[in-house]
Amino acid sequence: MSPEPAIDILGIGNAIVDVLAHTDDGALADLGLHKGTMSLIDGDRVPAIYASMAPGVECSGGSAANTVAGAALLGARTAFIGKVKDDTLGHIFRHDIRSAGVAFDTPPAADGSATACCLVMVTPDAHRTMATHLGACVELGPEAVDPDLVRAAAVTYVEGYLWDPPRARDAVRLAVRTAREAGRRVALSLSDPFCVDRHRDELRELVERDVDLLFANEEEIVSLFCARDFDDALQHVHGAVEVAALTRSEKGSVVVNGGEVHVIDAEPVARVVDTTGAGDLYAAGFLAAWVRGADLGTCARAGGVCAAEVITHLGARPEGDLRALVAARVGEGVLAGAR
Amino acid sequence: MSPEPAIDILGIGNAIVDVLAHTDDGALADLGLHKGTMSLIDGDRVPAIYASMAPGVECSGGSAANTVAGAALLGARTAFIGKVKDDTLGHIFRHDIRSAGVAFDTPPAADGSATACCLVMVTPDAHRTMATHLGACVELGPEAVDPDLVRAAAVTYVEGYLWDPPRARDAVRLAVRTAREAGRRVALSLSDPFCVDRHRDELRELVERDVDLLFANEEEIVSLFCARDFDDALQHVHGAVEVAALTRSEKGSVVVNGGEVHVIDAEPVARVVDTTGAGDLYAAGFLAAWVRGADLGTCARAGGVCAAEVITHLGARPEGDLRALVAARVGEGVLAGAR
Repeated sequence: MSPEPAIDILGIGNAIVDVLAHTDDGALADLGLHKGTMSLIDGDRVPAIYASMAPGVECSGGSAANTVAGAALLGARTAFIGKVKDDTLGHIFRHDIRSAGVAFDTPPAADGSATACCLVMVTPDAHRTMATHLGACVELGPEAVDPDLVRAAAVTYVEGYLWDPPRARDAVRLAVRTAREAGRRVALSLSDPFCVDRHRDELRELVERDVDLLFANEEEIVSLFCARDFDDALQHVHGAVEVAALTRSEKGSVVVNGGEVHVIDAEPVARVVDTTGAGDLYAAGFLAAWVRGADLGTCARAGGVCAAEVITHLGARPEGDLRALVAARVGEGVLAGAR
Repeated sequence: MSPEPAIDILGIGNAIVDVLAHTDDGALADLGLHKGTMSLIDGDRVPAIYASMAPGVECSGGSAANTVAGAALLGARTAFIGKVKDDTLGHIFRHDIRSAGVAFDTPPAADGSATACCLVMVTPDAHRTMATHLGACVELGPEAVDPDLVRAAAVTYVEGYLWDPPRARDAVRLAVRTAREAGRRVALSLSDPFCVDRHRDELRELVERDVDLLFANEEEIVSLFCARDFDDALQHVHGAVEVAALTRSEKGSVVVNGGEVHVIDAEPVARVVDTTGAGDLYAAGFLAAWVRGADLGTCARAGGVCAAEVITHLGARPEGDLRALVAARVGEGVLAGAR
C-alpha cells in the first residue's frame, strides 16, 4: 500500500497558449476549418490563419492544463507535466499555471519549435473552433515523467490530445503504469471527436484497461464506441469503465457508475460568450470534489458550476472566484479539507 | 489649403501589450504601486511583479493605440505610429491593430529592448493599476513620423504618455508642427495624473498653443492647471483650448467649447469588470463621430457608449460590436459616411 498521496491531481497534457478572437461561420469555411473541433496545423499555416483573424486575446490554454489550473484554484493540490519552449509564450504559460497554484517543473525545450499555440475562433453562437500548432509539445516524452511525482498523486489525469504528438503517448503509458502499480487512480478526458477518431483503438484500450474515471462529451463518447447515438454509447459505457462523466452542453451532464446513473442539470448562464474550456473546467470541478470524497452527483454539480463560469468570458481559464462559486452553488462542504 | 484628408485619425503613442490579472489592494500596497495610476518600471522589476500576479490575460494595449483601434472598428480611417520590437509581443501588437483596420507601418526595432509591456492589476472594485516597462518604445523618435501621413490625416491624436520615453516628444513636436502647417487638427489625451505631474509645463504649453481637442479625466485636468478641484479646472479650460472633453467615470462627461458646456450622463453598465481603456475608448467614440461632423453632445454620447463596452470585460480593446452599439444607442446616422 502506498503512503497517503502528497498531491491530489497530476495533469499531463499539451502545454499551449491560446489566441482567441471572434469570427463568423463564413470565415471558418474559408479557412477550411471544421466548426466546433480542433484541427492540427503545421507551423507554416499559422501566419496565414492568424492574419485572417480579428484582434485577439492571449490566454494560457491546453486541455489538461486548464483542468489542473481550475482544480488548483478550487484548493486541490496539483501538478502538471507538459512541454513549452524557453520563449515568451512559454514564460506566459509557466507563469499562469504556477500562479494558479500548480507545481510545474517540466524543463522547457531550449531549442526546436516555439511554444505551442492554439488559434481559437469564436462564432456568434459562442462555439469555438481551434487550429493548433503543437510546436514544442512534440518534445514531450517519457523522460519528462517523474515516477515519484506520479506515485505521489491520488489521480493522474491525461488528455486524449496527447496521442497527437509523436512521443507523448509513451509518457502517458509510463505514467499510467506507474500510477496503477502504486494503487493510484487514472482519469482521462477524450478531448475531441476527431482526436478520438484518429486514435480510437488505443484510447479504447486505455479506457477499458486502465481508466478509473472518464470524461467525454456526447460526440466523443459516441465516436469512442462507434455508437449510433448517445443512448447507444451509454450501453457501451457500462462495464467498460468504472466511472464516466459525460457532458451534454446545455443539457447538463450524466454520470455513469456501473448500474448507477446520475443526471445533473446544467447551471444557468446569463449569456454564453465562449465555450472554450467548458469541458476542461467541468473536469476541474468534478475532480476537485472527487478527491475530497464527494459523491458523484455532487462532483458533477461542482463541475457544472465551473463550466458555467468559464463560458461567460473569452478564454479557457477562470476569471471569477471559482471556489466561492462552488461553495455558494453546491455547498461549503464540497471542498472541505482543501487548502 | 490642403486637399481632402485621406485618413481621419492618425494616432501616435506607446506601442504596448498588456498583461491583465485580478488582484487586491493589499497586493498593490506590497508592490508599492499607487492604485488607479500608471507607474513606469525598469525591465529588471518586471519579473518580480509578474511573478506576484495571478494568472493573466494578454491583450494589445497602449492608450492612443486603443483609441485608433476603437475608432477603426467604428469605421474611421485610421493610422498609428509607435515602436515595437520584432518579437512575439511585437507581432501580437501589430496583428491586433492591423486587424482592427488601422494602417500600422512603423518599422519594428531589430534589436534593443523587448516590446513594451504593461502589467495591469485589476482590483475587485474594477479599478486598474498599471506598471509599464517602456521597452522598445524608447526607440520612438521623429524619424518614425512620415510628414505626408500627418498631412493626410484630418486629426493627429497623441497621448501624454509620449513625454515619458526620451525622444518621443520630438516625434510629437514634428507631427504637431506638420499638422498645423497643413491646416489639420491636433488632439491630445492627458493619459494619467502623475504623467501630467511629470511633464506639466510642456503639456500645458502644447495644450494652450496647438491642441484643438483635449481629452482628460478629472484628476488629469485638475493636475494640468494645478486647480483646487474640477470646477476650478473648468475655469482654466475656458480660453486655454478650443474643445475639451472631460470624463468623470460614472458621472459621465463634460464637453467645454468656449462658453458652451455639454453635460452628458454615463451609459448604464450592468457590471463593471475592468476600467482599463475606458478613457481611450471614450476618445475613440468621440473622435469617430467628430470626424464625421457630429455635434459635440453626440460625440460625447458615442464616446460614452464605447467606454461602457470596454469596462464590461478584461482588457482595453473592445470585444463587442462597437459600431452596432453606437448605432443602437446614439443613432444610425452618427457614423454615416464611415467605411
